[in-house]
Amino acid sequence: MLINGKHYQTIWLNEENNQIIQVFDQRFFPHKIEIFDIKNTDDAIFAIKEMVVRGAPLIGVTAAYGIYLASLETQVRSNPDKYIEEVAQKLAQTRPTAVNLVWAIKQMLTAINQGESVEQKINIALEKANDIKQEDIEICFKIGEYGLSLIKKIAEAKHGETVNILTHCNAGWLATIDWGTATSPMYQAQQAGIDIHVWVDETRPRNQGANLTAFELNQQGIPHTLITDNTGGHLMQHGMVDLVIVGTDRTTRNGDVANKIGTYLKALAAYDNNIPFYVALPSSTLDCSIADGITEISIETRDQNEVKYIQGKVDGEIKSVLICPETTPAMNYGFDVTPAKYVTGLITERGICDASEEGIRSLFPEKF
Amino acid sequence: MLINGKHYQTIWLNEENNQIIQVFDQRFFPHKIEIFDIKNTDDAIFAIKEMVVRGAPLIGVTAAYGIYLASLETQVRSNPDKYIEEVAQKLAQTRPTAVNLVWAIKQMLTAINQGESVEQKINIALEKANDIKQEDIEICFKIGEYGLSLIKKIAEAKHGETVNILTHCNAGWLATIDWGTATSPMYQAQQAGIDIHVWVDETRPRNQGANLTAFELNQQGIPHTLITDNTGGHLMQHGMVDLVIVGTDRTTRNGDVANKIGTYLKALAAYDNNIPFYVALPSSTLDCSIADGITEISIETRDQNEVKYIQGKVDGEIKSVLICPETTPAMNYGFDVTPAKYVTGLITERGICDASEEGIRSLFPEKF
Repeated sequence: MLINGKHYQTIWLNEENNQIIQVFDQRFFPHKIEIFDIKNTDDAIFAIKEMVVRGAPLIGVTAAYGIYLASLETQVRSNPDKYIEEVAQKLAQTRPTAVNLVWAIKQMLTAINQGESVEQKINIALEKANDIKQEDIEICFKIGEYGLSLIKKIAEAKHGETVNILTHCNAGWLATIDWGTATSPMYQAQQAGIDIHVWVDETRPRNQGANLTAFELNQQGIPHTLITDNTGGHLMQHGMVDLVIVGTDRTTRNGDVANKIGTYLKALAAYDNNIPFYVALPSSTLDCSIADGITEISIETRDQNEVKYIQGKVDGEIKSVLICPETTPAMNYGFDVTPAKYVTGLITERGICDASEEGIRSLFPEKF
Repeated sequence: MLINGKHYQTIWLNEENNQIIQVFDQRFFPHKIEIFDIKNTDDAIFAIKEMVVRGAPLIGVTAAYGIYLASLETQVRSNPDKYIEEVAQKLAQTRPTAVNLVWAIKQMLTAINQGESVEQKINIALEKANDIKQEDIEICFKIGEYGLSLIKKIAEAKHGETVNILTHCNAGWLATIDWGTATSPMYQAQQAGIDIHVWVDETRPRNQGANLTAFELNQQGIPHTLITDNTGGHLMQHGMVDLVIVGTDRTTRNGDVANKIGTYLKALAAYDNNIPFYVALPSSTLDCSIADGITEISIETRDQNEVKYIQGKVDGEIKSVLICPETTPAMNYGFDVTPAKYVTGLITERGICDASEEGIRSLFPEKF
């Protein structure tokens, strides 16, 4: 999608040196547009852990390229297989909730094992990482097509009046390679000439809505309005939201959805006001090994300073302000789980299904 | 309650000159503790409008003293009654949602009309404002006593294990004169030796939870943890909240509760997880002239920059940081309405009742 009018993806090989992976440093969006070089596996681990890159699909692709970099590093290692295994473990532990991080790493390891020489393994690793990246673009595009059908129906029912969509966090193209998951239907609606407007939850503590979703919608020219995370319920009570679309980090086989903290509250409000609540997801985020999201998904807690301090731009610089007494403790859960009963449907790359075992099985029988 | 170990109320007459009203400038809490002098009616209007003072009860008392200042100013006016009427109208328009702002002003006007000379009116005004203030302290104390009974029951059921209470915004003593409404039961539980812990919603956009509730609990030594507004649902799903107590700006005769934006979302989560959700309110915030809160209460919208910028402390100074692209528009609704069906009960100065016309009528028959 567009940044300053130029088409980008979120991760690419350096044009002159394909042993360097480049990404946008998303920690400084929207205030600074900076490119971050991933030159080795430590950089890759850092990029995922410190949220230089974020969003389940982009994390997965970054980890895939991380394994590619590990394969390059085995050239100076005595035990290449063991080394790759070690890097894979470190990468897998960077973010505990993102299931397709583990999925991408497994894909990479399986592929590499086909190669024999170090050189073969490197070539396979690069090709496989490129494939995973390309596949993500196609998946996001398909999600957009299916999601577009929902928006079209609402636009028709409203006789062309603006369709108001609410989203939480950033399941945008910046969280994927291109198009995004929750945003893909919005971008395709824009291309189809449908009049839409997006309510963007700021998404505390890290404000990915304000920093990223507002930024990408702004760059793409989609009408949008930033709101606090507290506001969606009021809007829904007053008919100002037609549709909610969010992303997910992990969805269980019975359709429980782990996503950015606060998603559950929006789902409750949508349910209470009869507003469709959809979750856009690549099937890599389906985790059919577990059923009950609330009891079975471990929710990562992060640094309390992400709650106590808020980052933004002041006097032309990016700084963090303290919002509470210095001695006040804070708790920082990254995600919550929305029970399947509050989810109207799942928008996947193979179509839309119910958030239930039957629904998921109908589209992804091989997952069971 | 305590600030730096010394007992204060939120509004008082200057010791040396009782024509000056003093309040804490709550815009700078918790980073700066500054006293704001209200020397004339313009100052009183500014203090309410710009949230130097906030919280329905404190707004009401400030407006009452504003009328007292208006009575002083009539000494140099040709048409005193008209002047007081004009000031009353301006004061009433400072914050459209706070019903006891209007209530306090009406009380003042009725009282003043008993006086004949300007001097008489001034004396009556001062006395009446003092009475309204004293009455608020007593009301908050009674709310605390009734609320304490709820906390006691939970503590007994938990066999003395910590009682976890979640609150939104600041319905603390800083929003009243002393004790607070939602916090009064907490302070009284502390005095009764009951082990409590409070989850404090930061309460975007203005962060009254982080700035004020965390500050006052901290000053009073009550264990508490700051959380983002997104977090409460997750905590409730995992049994980490025993009780929710919030304040209100206006409650309708059928028990719909207007309170700080986001309250509704917490009520939905409490309902979904069978957690008692109580609203602490002085009866001055009951508005029995209306029934349906969602359709009948006009919700104030405030400056969009309160959403786009967040205030805090950085490099020893209080500054505001921009959290989104400069050209992104924002919408800032100040309040939402929680339908009565999600409210377990109302904690008032006359006892606890159902959030229903029958419940309210049983305690406040004179309101109907």
